Amino acid sequence: MSIHFRILGGPGRDNALLVQVDSGQAVERLLFDCGEGCVSELSFGEIQDIDHVFFSHFHMDHIAGFDSFFRCVFNRETKPNYIWGPPGTRKVMHHRFRGFLWNLHEQMAGSWRVSDLYPEEGRISTGRYELRESFASAHEVSEARLPQGVGYTVEAFTMNHRTPSMAYLVREKARWNIDASRLGSLGLRPGPWLKQLKDSVDDESTLDIEGVTYSVADLRKSLLTETPGDSIAYLTDFLMDETAMKHLEPALLGCRVIVCESQYRHCDEELAQKNYHMTSVQAATLAQRAGAEMLVLFHLSDRYRPDEWLEMIQEAREVFSNTRVASEWGLIPNI
Amino acid sequence: MSIHFRILGGPGRDNALLVQVDSGQAVERLLFDCGEGCVSELSFGEIQDIDHVFFSHFHMDHIAGFDSFFRCVFNRETKPNYIWGPPGTRKVMHHRFRGFLWNLHEQMAGSWRVSDLYPEEGRISTGRYELRESFASAHEVSEARLPQGVGYTVEAFTMNHRTPSMAYLVREKARWNIDASRLGSLGLRPGPWLKQLKDSVDDESTLDIEGVTYSVADLRKSLLTETPGDSIAYLTDFLMDETAMKHLEPALLGCRVIVCESQYRHCDEELAQKNYHMTSVQAATLAQRAGAEMLVLFHLSDRYRPDEWLEMIQEAREVFSNTRVASEWGLIPNI
Repeated sequence: MSIHFRILGGPGRDNALLVQVDSGQAVERLLFDCGEGCVSELSFGEIQDIDHVFFSHFHMDHIAGFDSFFRCVFNRETKPNYIWGPPGTRKVMHHRFRGFLWNLHEQMAGSWRVSDLYPEEGRISTGRYELRESFASAHEVSEARLPQGVGYTVEAFTMNHRTPSMAYLVREKARWNIDASRLGSLGLRPGPWLKQLKDSVDDESTLDIEGVTYSVADLRKSLLTETPGDSIAYLTDFLMDETAMKHLEPALLGCRVIVCESQYRHCDEELAQKNYHMTSVQAATLAQRAGAEMLVLFHLSDRYRPDEWLEMIQEAREVFSNTRVASEWGLIPNI
Repeated sequence: MSIHFRILGGPGRDNALLVQVDSGQAVERLLFDCGEGCVSELSFGEIQDIDHVFFSHFHMDHIAGFDSFFRCVFNRETKPNYIWGPPGTRKVMHHRFRGFLWNLHEQMAGSWRVSDLYPEEGRISTGRYELRESFASAHEVSEARLPQGVGYTVEAFTMNHRTPSMAYLVREKARWNIDASRLGSLGLRPGPWLKQLKDSVDDESTLDIEGVTYSVADLRKSLLTETPGDSIAYLTDFLMDETAMKHLEPALLGCRVIVCESQYRHCDEELAQKNYHMTSVQAATLAQRAGAEMLVLFHLSDRYRPDEWLEMIQEAREVFSNTRVASEWGLIPNI
């Protein structure tokens, strides 16, 4: 697997998700939400390595740890600084950037790009904010594009938490690998042409190998095997009704890991619905319908005792057996 | 002593000061600065009990824990909500209040009063900010007065940290107590008149006791003894040059406890000066000149190792022997 993840924060506390995508060419790190006490579990170096921050929404339990992140990277010039979230992200972040005194940073040049996502309209609104200006102004960025990194894409889905709450799906691009065992049957020997074939994008083109001309399309068909990309979804703080299910199920089809909020027990489904949150059984139902490999529950309500958390997990496992929680929580042995 | 205090945060980390003033009629709690990981050392109940927050200034290490405070009290209606600080406090706080999504709080009525202090001009600029309005507007408050509580006053001093940084002095008002041993010599017996005498403010008035008329002034002179109020000063992040010394020394005269920043060792005095910070010896010199009873050093730089922190404290003790640090830090035994 080339996607690794870590749940930050404890059970019944604020949580966040750290995702690491290793594309082979580069390792990128994505942080989903910034609850209190989450980022502060990471070392200064680990925080500095974060490439993108994605927010579901801006209720206190998802943003109250932002300062712990920002103080480590506010003047970062080693990589671009990106923040993404639902409509309103630019406004909230602009306030947060200005929630400090900036009088010692004339020589520093940290530059931040903050985007409001409108996935259903296929558009983004991005602002650029400069430390050198004490973050006073929002500079409109017109060439904004959907968040994507080296070898992976991030897709956003607008969900309903009485306010727009973003669900995210990280998908590594499919990889094409040479099946070397098939070379002999074509009477071909390995060579630099293999890389050309792997990187080829035009099926109509041809390739000369040892004086013979081959069709790229034929060669790809004979020699390349596709490995589907790894994938992880981050789902939190929204009403999991049939509309939400139908919105997410096709998008998440075959997603390997689903990290999903589980505020409530099944018996409190009415409360979950009233508060536009989820139960563990709803999370498990989605994982089952999407054919996921693993469901990781997080964002458990502190209204429950630890033994009730265990029951929540058990309830989910009856619907989707490979349901887990962060092993650091020490709730369940051997996962 | 009726003032108790607690240093929040560890050595080489962000710090804050929690002060509890017990006037006999009421207990009030004052928080000085809001560094990361400071307020989160307190329980929800302890945070709810805080009456006033005072900021020295708004560099990250003094404000990055504000969200931990605010999420516990943003909708507090059981007591007024006050924040005080240097000029610019209203601006910074207004941004911070708007650094969240407010869509569930139509029924809540938390009201916040934030004041920019101009002590040298004897004036204050106060704004009122309402949760019910999602903190959208700043309402001018004209009747603003200097921060003072039940039985104590807080005085602010503008110091120079290349930006205004506020030093604070909390002084309990003097208490008048009856010396019961003197009653006999006047041939008087205890009675409700004692409380009248204690509470009397007009020295020209008289008091009838068992049919005899006495002058209040004479009685007060004979029977009352004055106990000076307890006091504590909070000094951090400013240049401790002779100007600063001369500004603070007369104001702090006889102050019982001085809690003072000690970023640098004496040998790094030049660096301290360059960065508008202090050395432990400078802190000790002020404590000595002001005739304090105790000096508590905090805000030690993480550029030093623990054994160097011990040397810093030792250097200060050579100037002012009763120099301490928070016992929770485990740096020095038996204090």
